[in-house]
Amino acid sequence: MAISKVSPESLFPVKGVRLATAATGIRYQHRDDLLLMEICKHARTAAVFTTNQFCAAPVIVCKRHLGTVQPKYLLVNAGNANAGLGAQGIADTCAACTALARESGCNESEVLPFSTGIIGERLDVEKMTPYYAQLIGHLEEDGWVAAAKAIMTTDTVSKGFSKQVKLDGHTVVVTGIAKGSGMIYPDMATMLAFVATDLGFDSRSVVSVLSDAVRQSFHCVTVDGDTSTNDACVLIATGQAGIDFSELSERARVEFIRTLDSLFLDLAQSIVRDAEGITKYICISVDQAPSESMARNIAFTVAHSPLVKTMAYASDPNWGRIMAAAGRAKAGPLEMNRLSLYINGLKVVTNGKLASGYTEEAGIQAMQNDEIEFRLELGLGSCSARVWTSDLSHEYVKINAEYRS
Amino acid sequence: MAISKVSPESLFPVKGVRLATAATGIRYQHRDDLLLMEICKHARTAAVFTTNQFCAAPVIVCKRHLGTVQPKYLLVNAGNANAGLGAQGIADTCAACTALARESGCNESEVLPFSTGIIGERLDVEKMTPYYAQLIGHLEEDGWVAAAKAIMTTDTVSKGFSKQVKLDGHTVVVTGIAKGSGMIYPDMATMLAFVATDLGFDSRSVVSVLSDAVRQSFHCVTVDGDTSTNDACVLIATGQAGIDFSELSERARVEFIRTLDSLFLDLAQSIVRDAEGITKYICISVDQAPSESMARNIAFTVAHSPLVKTMAYASDPNWGRIMAAAGRAKAGPLEMNRLSLYINGLKVVTNGKLASGYTEEAGIQAMQNDEIEFRLELGLGSCSARVWTSDLSHEYVKINAEYRS
Repeated sequence: MAISKVSPESLFPVKGVRLATAATGIRYQHRDDLLLMEICKHARTAAVFTTNQFCAAPVIVCKRHLGTVQPKYLLVNAGNANAGLGAQGIADTCAACTALARESGCNESEVLPFSTGIIGERLDVEKMTPYYAQLIGHLEEDGWVAAAKAIMTTDTVSKGFSKQVKLDGHTVVVTGIAKGSGMIYPDMATMLAFVATDLGFDSRSVVSVLSDAVRQSFHCVTVDGDTSTNDACVLIATGQAGIDFSELSERARVEFIRTLDSLFLDLAQSIVRDAEGITKYICISVDQAPSESMARNIAFTVAHSPLVKTMAYASDPNWGRIMAAAGRAKAGPLEMNRLSLYINGLKVVTNGKLASGYTEEAGIQAMQNDEIEFRLELGLGSCSARVWTSDLSHEYVKINAEYRS
Repeated sequence: MAISKVSPESLFPVKGVRLATAATGIRYQHRDDLLLMEICKHARTAAVFTTNQFCAAPVIVCKRHLGTVQPKYLLVNAGNANAGLGAQGIADTCAACTALARESGCNESEVLPFSTGIIGERLDVEKMTPYYAQLIGHLEEDGWVAAAKAIMTTDTVSKGFSKQVKLDGHTVVVTGIAKGSGMIYPDMATMLAFVATDLGFDSRSVVSVLSDAVRQSFHCVTVDGDTSTNDACVLIATGQAGIDFSELSERARVEFIRTLDSLFLDLAQSIVRDAEGITKYICISVDQAPSESMARNIAFTVAHSPLVKTMAYASDPNWGRIMAAAGRAKAGPLEMNRLSLYINGLKVVTNGKLASGYTEEAGIQAMQNDEIEFRLELGLGSCSARVWTSDLSHEYVKINAEYRS
């Protein structure tokens, strides 16, 4: 594995959020696979979910509960997606919420359920129930690192980031964890991600801040173009830092948004860096486009091309494949004689043809890096987009052909 | 390699079309790589080309020439695509046409040039010129089998089909050859294909007959979703059978169209059967859709899913991946509780959930075949679509990572 992967060793606690994990043995042995997150009173929580119409039972129930009240608990199980089970899946998810509500004394609609893992096998919620009392008893603010581990499925490392920022004299924390390494394509929060801050928010602002952050992060990554049935991304604002977003100075607001956005991007990129079978971490940049949507469309078409992904795996500067992928994007008219292509800064194509001075040797050299940027300049405008993806390796085929995730 | 592949051993000649091949050594050694097809006077020729905006020089020149006069020669080289070379590529293609025109005494616009092979390397047309006299001298009606071989690149077998049909007392022939095994996705004739019939046509009818045939064949196959820069499909109607399409009885016309369409489908499917790294030949059928376009959209989304392709490779009935791919298709609203899925006739999902009586063992059994049909019934209407694709194997990665095509 060429890409360095770092698990979080410590993450700042967020006042107002407590976590606990347990090992139920539903699918995995000898590891935690159940996470309980408790959210304090007066917090504001927003979530975005998969756009996949074949969405899992917990996604349906989450949306229903979130529309009613502010949640008190997030309940996350790893190893079983509880998807593709029709009414039975919904009933099982509701039963899990009810059991936790009974144990904790809250209303079942105050529980948001999340599942990730294999599709089509019934979730044995009875195996979870005996652990609720223990989880509630062990809730602690410092549980983020263990939580990041408990939600993993095919992930090879746990994913978490934490930032502390001084805003108008107040110290504010943002901490987030995520899981995911296959069935990754944006179009809604891809995978599971839980981010919390102790800054205060009103209900409307927390939704718009989450939506903006997701657009610039999880919506800019892809592994295989397959959108999961269970994707969800949650932002919790506890307000325990003693200050509200609306009370901040303009400068501090910008600073907070920048901090939050960069944490979301860190999480999203950490999923690509842990992509199934990855040996190359690839950034596709499209510049000089007439619109952002055109730039995004071209970048994703290149990112999804199996021919581009295999040439990256081979460290082969087979640049015609990138041009061909850009040319087939249904993105609007291109002027091929204005198009330029750079591989890790090396000019390969100018005005639609091979750059003078380009040599195959230099191209091969540029492709050796573990991190590769393919940058296209369209020469048609001033808009840009960047997306991140992984290569297509033997290991990818092996993982997806040989294992059930 | 599990899929049986059969090279054509003999193909019916088509009166009015003569062929010759030669070995120029431009890229390949010890094999023919240059094809000349001569078309008789009064024939009618139509062609469709790639929609890729990064299209190759010969595609641009072909379109230009075809707009002016009926072609007399098709000149096809294999091993070099003459793509991504800007004005130089156009100049080289034109030079090849001019040299052939000079040798044969025709106008250069009567020559249609086709190239297939590596992108971005200059085509050495000087190496082709010395062979024109020899090619013209050796033209023969019986040259189809050799022609099918001469246009191959990464193909492992040559592809050709031939049909003879009795129409209102006249014997009519349709013969076609094709090449292609990677960078395959419809959206215009995928790859190179040349089909000829001795039935007569007017200029308008030959275009519409070709367009209909392509829609039901080459536009229904995909290997990797990558549309080539050089795709072209040509239909030549020589009129040498002594009868014209317009003079046929209604019944004979239907019979001819059916014959032509099935030959196109044979050619298109033969490309998928020879797909890079194929071990499973997959048909995705979508039935009971409210529209054909929705059915096609879902079928292609499933066909392009790397997770579906790898589960086929593994003979793993991981049906959730098929449902998840269908669910993420941007095709319009589905009702998941009406959806059914069959794997090679085995009922796996009914009403959006696992079929009662389905067993993992039966699913594994159904996936063992070299040819697999995934059939989705949407329960929303009466429209259907079928597309054909290949699996994603270690060999696919190897071919595309290790070799330049």
